[in-house]
Amino acid sequence: MVDQNYENYLAIVNEHILDFLPEIDNKSITLYDSMKYSLMAGGKRLRPVLLLGACEMCGGDVNAAIPYACAIEYVHTYSLIHDDLPCMDDDDLRRGIATNHKVYGEDIATLAGDGLLNSAFEAMYRDMFLYFDDPDALKARVRAAYEIAKGAGCTGMIAGQVADVESEGKACSPEMLDYIHLNKTAALITAAVRAGAMLGNADKKMLDDLTDYAEAIGLAFQIQDDMLDVTGTVEELGKNVGMDKELSKTTYPAVHGMDASKARADELHELALDSIADYYDNAEFFINIVEALRNRRK
Amino acid sequence: MVDQNYENYLAIVNEHILDFLPEIDNKSITLYDSMKYSLMAGGKRLRPVLLLGACEMCGGDVNAAIPYACAIEYVHTYSLIHDDLPCMDDDDLRRGIATNHKVYGEDIATLAGDGLLNSAFEAMYRDMFLYFDDPDALKARVRAAYEIAKGAGCTGMIAGQVADVESEGKACSPEMLDYIHLNKTAALITAAVRAGAMLGNADKKMLDDLTDYAEAIGLAFQIQDDMLDVTGTVEELGKNVGMDKELSKTTYPAVHGMDASKARADELHELALDSIADYYDNAEFFINIVEALRNRRK
Repeated sequence: MVDQNYENYLAIVNEHILDFLPEIDNKSITLYDSMKYSLMAGGKRLRPVLLLGACEMCGGDVNAAIPYACAIEYVHTYSLIHDDLPCMDDDDLRRGIATNHKVYGEDIATLAGDGLLNSAFEAMYRDMFLYFDDPDALKARVRAAYEIAKGAGCTGMIAGQVADVESEGKACSPEMLDYIHLNKTAALITAAVRAGAMLGNADKKMLDDLTDYAEAIGLAFQIQDDMLDVTGTVEELGKNVGMDKELSKTTYPAVHGMDASKARADELHELALDSIADYYDNAEFFINIVEALRNRRK
Repeated sequence: MVDQNYENYLAIVNEHILDFLPEIDNKSITLYDSMKYSLMAGGKRLRPVLLLGACEMCGGDVNAAIPYACAIEYVHTYSLIHDDLPCMDDDDLRRGIATNHKVYGEDIATLAGDGLLNSAFEAMYRDMFLYFDDPDALKARVRAAYEIAKGAGCTGMIAGQVADVESEGKACSPEMLDYIHLNKTAALITAAVRAGAMLGNADKKMLDDLTDYAEAIGLAFQIQDDMLDVTGTVEELGKNVGMDKELSKTTYPAVHGMDASKARADELHELALDSIADYYDNAEFFINIVEALRNRRK
């Protein structure tokens, strides 16, 4: 399992995950219930945990980063609800329980997804109001919120989803495969780490190094998922390292073969560790994430 | 037609409507095209025009408000794309041309809607970076962006959409009908006016008065739409006053009768004019909007 810090961060996220939804009227109780259903449907909260870990490693106050951690989990959760819709991946089950639209219908599920994305931004704006007398802290929050928006958006996660949809059933070039993986999976993971670092007032070098780390583990995660789709043990890996099962239609082993996939994942894990080598005394959490990943592959 | 100012604001919005989308990679050209398709599909740009008008009336710089005007049109456009989906209203046509999903498929249309909502927030964050050396201007922008987020969200537009979906085929109480109209339609119109006023540094009284004005015209618009659904001329009204045709399943005349609907719309128009009576020398644009509405009904 991951180390103690991961569990501590996870506990914080789970304790507060519903706190930053808007105060929804009784007349919209179905909307609230449907958003809550997917927010409470399990998952290792990888992105918010990374955000809190990055904030703390950079010397920031973890408690002050909680709204942003929950906001990025709202974004991730909305993307899963919309991904599961019949017009997308058409999945009946996620993490072993019924998908949102199987419980609430496609119309409410679509709106619940929209509502979670919107709520992420509302939560971050509400937090910014608390820093109107502290210009530097306000600016750090605008920067962090923008990172999350960009990672989630049309030059990030959504770009990857569209490319994935469009690649379905077609031959996929290595270049397009990297584009899909980097955007669909790595962009929001990188945004989590960068937003946390910004909230912790990281200097430029630390921000750059953590960005390299995040891009490497984000891409390695997706390659591992792809490999384990082949070997059939993805469910177990997903449970242990916090990745959601994403049945990639366009997979790394399919394009590069298994041996090259393993070699690339190993290389990326090394790259991730190298990226944070200057902070080893203070980066146990990030080292352990890589080790947990590596060990899962044995 | 509406007055010259409306046309000027409309021209500004139309000129810049694509400027605030992220710089999308060639690999995501379908995503860009699908968002552009719906952004360019006509419509009177009521919300962005109101935002610019409110900013100018309060003494603000219209040019500096353009990113927020375009952002609120992105939000409105995403809501139409998702509303038209087969799992929602299942519309093949909007404003006389094929809906987004009829052209691009349901998967891309869902993602294009998500992309437009996300892009609205990205656009506003990018604008905020320009004001990092001007704390008061930065705070005004955070406030304006939050107004748009709140109006669009789970205590605004999305709440109204969920209540509308849930009321379908059921008896609807007058209270629930008001809830649907106030949230589904009036909330984003009110957010447009309030965000514009905030960008123009309105004082509290002016902001309150413009809020009253916007809530009144937002509700009146929806009641008129409902009445014209009955009389069958909604298409023409929609074209002239800038409202999109929303075939309400739960309508004001159905609950209150035609006479009471007319009386309520008249009352709301008077209320709107009363709300801005203190600014008559400076509120020609807002007076003309009400007059245009009133005349359409004769």
